[in-house]
Amino acid sequence: MIGGGNGSFIGAVHRIAANLDGQIDLVCGCFSGTPSVSVASGRNLFLPEDRIYNSYQEMIEEEAKLPEAERMDFVSIVTPNHVHFEPAMMALKHGFHVVLDKPVTYTLEEAKALREQVKVSGKLFALTHTYTGYPMVKEARTRVLRGDIGKVRRVYVEYPQGWLYSDCAGVNKQAAWRVDPKRSGKAGCMGDIGTHAFNLVEYITGLKAIELCAELNTFVPGRLLDDDGAMLIRYEGDAKGVLTASQIAVGEENALKIRIYGTKGGLEWCQEEPNTMWMKWPDRPREMIRTSNGYMSEMAAHNSRTPGGHPEGYIEAFANIYRNFALTLQAMKEGKEPSSLCLDFPSVQEGVRGMQFIETVVASSNSDKKWVKMVD
Amino acid sequence: MIGGGNGSFIGAVHRIAANLDGQIDLVCGCFSGTPSVSVASGRNLFLPEDRIYNSYQEMIEEEAKLPEAERMDFVSIVTPNHVHFEPAMMALKHGFHVVLDKPVTYTLEEAKALREQVKVSGKLFALTHTYTGYPMVKEARTRVLRGDIGKVRRVYVEYPQGWLYSDCAGVNKQAAWRVDPKRSGKAGCMGDIGTHAFNLVEYITGLKAIELCAELNTFVPGRLLDDDGAMLIRYEGDAKGVLTASQIAVGEENALKIRIYGTKGGLEWCQEEPNTMWMKWPDRPREMIRTSNGYMSEMAAHNSRTPGGHPEGYIEAFANIYRNFALTLQAMKEGKEPSSLCLDFPSVQEGVRGMQFIETVVASSNSDKKWVKMVD
Amino acid sequence: MIGGGNGSFIGAVHRIAANLDGQIDLVCGCFSGTPSVSVASGRNLFLPEDRIYNSYQEMIEEEAKLPEAERMDFVSIVTPNHVHFEPAMMALKHGFHVVLDKPVTYTLEEAKALREQVKVSGKLFALTHTYTGYPMVKEARTRVLRGDIGKVRRVYVEYPQGWLYSDCAGVNKQAAWRVDPKRSGKAGCMGDIGTHAFNLVEYITGLKAIELCAELNTFVPGRLLDDDGAMLIRYEGDAKGVLTASQIAVGEENALKIRIYGTKGGLEWCQEEPNTMWMKWPDRPREMIRTSNGYMSEMAAHNSRTPGGHPEGYIEAFANIYRNFALTLQAMKEGKEPSSLCLDFPSVQEGVRGMQFIETVVASSNSDKKWVKMVD
Amino acid sequence: MIGGGNGSFIGAVHRIAANLDGQIDLVCGCFSGTPSVSVASGRNLFLPEDRIYNSYQEMIEEEAKLPEAERMDFVSIVTPNHVHFEPAMMALKHGFHVVLDKPVTYTLEEAKALREQVKVSGKLFALTHTYTGYPMVKEARTRVLRGDIGKVRRVYVEYPQGWLYSDCAGVNKQAAWRVDPKRSGKAGCMGDIGTHAFNLVEYITGLKAIELCAELNTFVPGRLLDDDGAMLIRYEGDAKGVLTASQIAVGEENALKIRIYGTKGGLEWCQEEPNTMWMKWPDRPREMIRTSNGYMSEMAAHNSRTPGGHPEGYIEAFANIYRNFALTLQAMKEGKEPSSLCLDFPSVQEGVRGMQFIETVVASSNSDKKWVKMVD
Repeated sequence: MIGGGNGSFIGAVHRIAANLDGQIDLVCGCFSGTPSVSVASGRNLFLPEDRIYNSYQEMIEEEAKLPEAERMDFVSIVTPNHVHFEPAMMALKHGFHVVLDKPVTYTLEEAKALREQVKVSGKLFALTHTYTGYPMVKEARTRVLRGDIGKVRRVYVEYPQGWLYSDCAGVNKQAAWRVDPKRSGKAGCMGDIGTHAFNLVEYITGLKAIELCAELNTFVPGRLLDDDGAMLIRYEGDAKGVLTASQIAVGEENALKIRIYGTKGGLEWCQEEPNTMWMKWPDRPREMIRTSNGYMSEMAAHNSRTPGGHPEGYIEAFANIYRNFALTLQAMKEGKEPSSLCLDFPSVQEGVRGMQFIETVVASSNSDKKWVKMVD
Repeated sequence: MIGGGNGSFIGAVHRIAANLDGQIDLVCGCFSGTPSVSVASGRNLFLPEDRIYNSYQEMIEEEAKLPEAERMDFVSIVTPNHVHFEPAMMALKHGFHVVLDKPVTYTLEEAKALREQVKVSGKLFALTHTYTGYPMVKEARTRVLRGDIGKVRRVYVEYPQGWLYSDCAGVNKQAAWRVDPKRSGKAGCMGDIGTHAFNLVEYITGLKAIELCAELNTFVPGRLLDDDGAMLIRYEGDAKGVLTASQIAVGEENALKIRIYGTKGGLEWCQEEPNTMWMKWPDRPREMIRTSNGYMSEMAAHNSRTPGGHPEGYIEAFANIYRNFALTLQAMKEGKEPSSLCLDFPSVQEGVRGMQFIETVVASSNSDKKWVKMVD
Repeated sequence: MIGGGNGSFIGAVHRIAANLDGQIDLVCGCFSGTPSVSVASGRNLFLPEDRIYNSYQEMIEEEAKLPEAERMDFVSIVTPNHVHFEPAMMALKHGFHVVLDKPVTYTLEEAKALREQVKVSGKLFALTHTYTGYPMVKEARTRVLRGDIGKVRRVYVEYPQGWLYSDCAGVNKQAAWRVDPKRSGKAGCMGDIGTHAFNLVEYITGLKAIELCAELNTFVPGRLLDDDGAMLIRYEGDAKGVLTASQIAVGEENALKIRIYGTKGGLEWCQEEPNTMWMKWPDRPREMIRTSNGYMSEMAAHNSRTPGGHPEGYIEAFANIYRNFALTLQAMKEGKEPSSLCLDFPSVQEGVRGMQFIETVVASSNSDKKWVKMVD
Repeated sequence: MIGGGNGSFIGAVHRIAANLDGQIDLVCGCFSGTPSVSVASGRNLFLPEDRIYNSYQEMIEEEAKLPEAERMDFVSIVTPNHVHFEPAMMALKHGFHVVLDKPVTYTLEEAKALREQVKVSGKLFALTHTYTGYPMVKEARTRVLRGDIGKVRRVYVEYPQGWLYSDCAGVNKQAAWRVDPKRSGKAGCMGDIGTHAFNLVEYITGLKAIELCAELNTFVPGRLLDDDGAMLIRYEGDAKGVLTASQIAVGEENALKIRIYGTKGGLEWCQEEPNTMWMKWPDRPREMIRTSNGYMSEMAAHNSRTPGGHPEGYIEAFANIYRNFALTLQAMKEGKEPSSLCLDFPSVQEGVRGMQFIETVVASSNSDKKWVKMVD
């Protein structure tokens, strides 16, 4: 692991998620740019001293020298956005598979370069777009792609949070880097959570965004990046979308929600009650779909662990990415064809797509033109 | 009453709403442009034969000839949009107060002319923007205006319906006129329900829309008017809004919903559970506000009839417009100053505003410019 | 109307409910045992002076002397429980139909005597067990009786309220008579709301309770009647029930809820969201049944007024009793057979059943025996 | 681990829960009474061959012979009820700490003997009453014990499931042992899930049940144990409870729910939405309490892993028992006093209490007496 030292939120989540299914062991790490923090963090994680490194460069180099059976199989990179690209490139080049926190890189160019390197290296690459790890999101995709709701017409996706409603960068470490353009990139709220919403739509519907009309807002005085935004999106096949994301929606926690309406039916899913999905019909009662029931698809069942009514949550969704990554990796190591059930995790292409989204949104927000085509 | 013959939906609702509080009696009517239908309808309503009229012109003229104590006090006009203006003008000119179903007229010019006539005549005028009749909507307005949520930053308002998801104009009388530009006006879905959503925001926040960026869609082949649309709106005070309305959102009934976030808190209300409102706070638990509790404002209490937990609905909201209109009318007849609690019903200015909204949305949807200022 | 003077809750609800559909006009009343209050109340209701009476005896006698076309058709009795029996008997004996608030009488013996008088007189009699007036309750009954959920096994019915959680009899007029055995009868909470819950089960399932095991509690010090209770009930056909009712469940409003499970499926309905019912199945998704959809039964449709998504509430449910009573009465007056759709309102037999329930519950609560058979 | 071979539900959950926080490694196991199954299961779990045992006796004896630094620290027993007592006793006697699935044993006598052995041995003992591991349940306990809702008056606890609504013992391995008295004990549904409900009340309120009045039912023909039941319970301090549990409540998943009302307020929590709790008040709005907010107690925060809005579920609750057990064990090994935050996991006394509950319920169900005192 690179990053995720003591006090990190997302690093701890990565470790729990990786642990959960007993497929992955943490064997080494560089948990901070500050060596003493890295060492202290590694000790807390019961790592032997010689596998705790002072820099990610050192770690990648040293691990690459170990015999194949002993060295790490892959690296998890859980640093802020501006420290994604270099360690990822270096790991790939040294022959390691990579799991990378999103957004994939700081710039679109880096993302494309990384995509190229993944292709060239033939290594596995996973991007932790967590929300597509939920079994119900996979169920939604399955149902939409097989035509249950007909041709998609209308998509509403929203991602309201409230935790940045005031100027808390001075006291909240999580907030500090997110509102700092040097560490976050061109977009704040839209990069941090808007990309999740954008990814969710393309994942579930299989439709690509064509052009969009966006307005980004900065409500908290003195903030340098957007903390709120909304847009109209035109998708392939004449489907129309509205995407909103906000981090000043006071009192909201993490209420990512998607609603899709087609010619035959509709569906609705909200991340805060992830085990439930609604199917809506013109002429019969709305149905409450619940995880781990017999009527669920094979894809959803593969990504569930407990029987109906025993709620699974965010950590399990996260763990699904790691588990599918690990199962694919095992298959590769055993020379087998990985199952299509396991191959379903977000990769570098979703990362490139996310960076294209950020570029386009920022361009649109600065433009007087109504529609801006998706940047390529 | 003008319109609302046998089989009419909204006419029946108007009558129930007017009846409900025992303040208003139906004394005469012209219920259809077809005299035999008008007569049959009037008989079903227990009207004497001589108060059932063959045309609205006849009704207004004949009633005006009756002694003041016998003639109707006011007229309710519940016809399709294109038959709003003329009877309303005629009634005002003959000295009758008017209750008019929304949208106020077929064109903005008519709306302004009607506004002028209301002013000149000194007559009472109510527009049945039903949703502002809910006690909880009045509570929301009270709380926002007194600053409970701070300065308004972000508004989401949505109005999804699904009943026009397919081409049903041939079999559904309610659908037929709504999708017909000759009877509905320039906008379909946006005129029918988008105006409600627009009105709701301005009513609750007291903020005027400045400019907007809209896209109207027609999903059902062959339909002449929009059946769906979405827009970004800029309000006074740098508040930002998203408004969506759809009649092809399959499986949705009448799910008008508003969420408002300010600098201190947020609120949420949905028409389908009208007795509940959510207050959201950055640092303490979300509160579930419920009608008819001791903590409700005087304005909300004035518009409720039953104790907590005895749900009131759409008809009661509708009836609040009629009751407040009637109480104001009584005060006028008794030469008293009407209470501010009673004076709170939508009037012709809200109607003009709605027509301005329709004009602006249609213009924006046809424009390549990102922002179109609200038409005056 | 007898009772329901200024400040009365249930009297006002009766009037609104009777008004709502335009089938019933209030023509006379004795609104209080205190003549001046009766007169003041009648004037507020726009009644002519000569139809406002000083006592119910006077009213019944005077109205009976009027020509048939002028006198009242029926009387609504909305007094506290101890003033139900005598005016109801007197009205029946003078040839008037009767609508009576529940519980039917002060004692079981009175209830039986009233039942006999209804039978002898051939007059119509309605008891306002409001909750069975909801369209969704009628839908539930329709579905259970036609076998949708199979043979009924398990019933949970609960009726929590919180408004009597402290000693408020001194300040709350509604509370004062309910906690007074002289006005309420043998049971407090169980008589006031437990009877509604009991009635709801027998109405929906068509099953009669056979025996029960109850515990009544009085939590508020100094109170003379129960303010809470719970019981196990055995129904015909080996169905088992649990019934709870409480008026000290702090923070609850009027949360009457029923859940029924059969051999094939289950259903759930809650009064506070009355337009929704849940159907539960062993092997397919839970369904959300909503009023005014095309899939609803004829019985439910007959008792609805607005399209889907336009919520109807308590007043409309109440009005359904009055409307069905009025339609039946009209049919009788016209010499026609009333439709089975209209004949579906609670009558004196439900009242007798409620009094039997109260007697049995009180006996059981005082007994060491586990099971007490329903009193006959 | 003892039990939990391939195909086991609860064994897999135990392993995931133990893995989750990186505090515990699976080092050995006997996963089945059938050696070949044990070996196959152990291999799937990446265990070395020499730590996969053919019988639990062998495992305990062999592990005890290993040097302290190499042998297992504790054993998890996840077998059916009738194979709880002997391995637990043997493990304690050989110096191993124990985690045991609930109910603790097959009979009350065994439970008491085990309690004695735990006391004598000084070993740690955890019973996986999972539901008390939820952070929100700990929050509920904290709030009730510090008096937020005043003196407890009324408790409703319910645990409806539907999966045993028909005779599925032949096809469902999970069902087969639960409905078999030889493996389950004296009670079916009440032992399996009723004990969870019972434990939840005593945990949250700190009140002991004094006596109860129960009816157990067997709805599915041919079944030997109860599949449904309900009871009235009297608690210390004159609090009154209703407990229902059912496995024939068709369409229910795992809807454990508790509502508690005191003299000042009430609370409600449902396992299927575990991150939300409702606080109810007589004179102010209901509050929606959500995990991982700043207003949560230290005890709840200690048992949470993700920020607000990132749902945690059943596995995390389960993991809290393991984590607290592991943290306590670490403190013991380091000679430190374990924190009171960590010591909060169910132990053998809760197991004894559960067996007393089962004995009492069965006795009550077979009795004609109304109240049966809790068996000691």
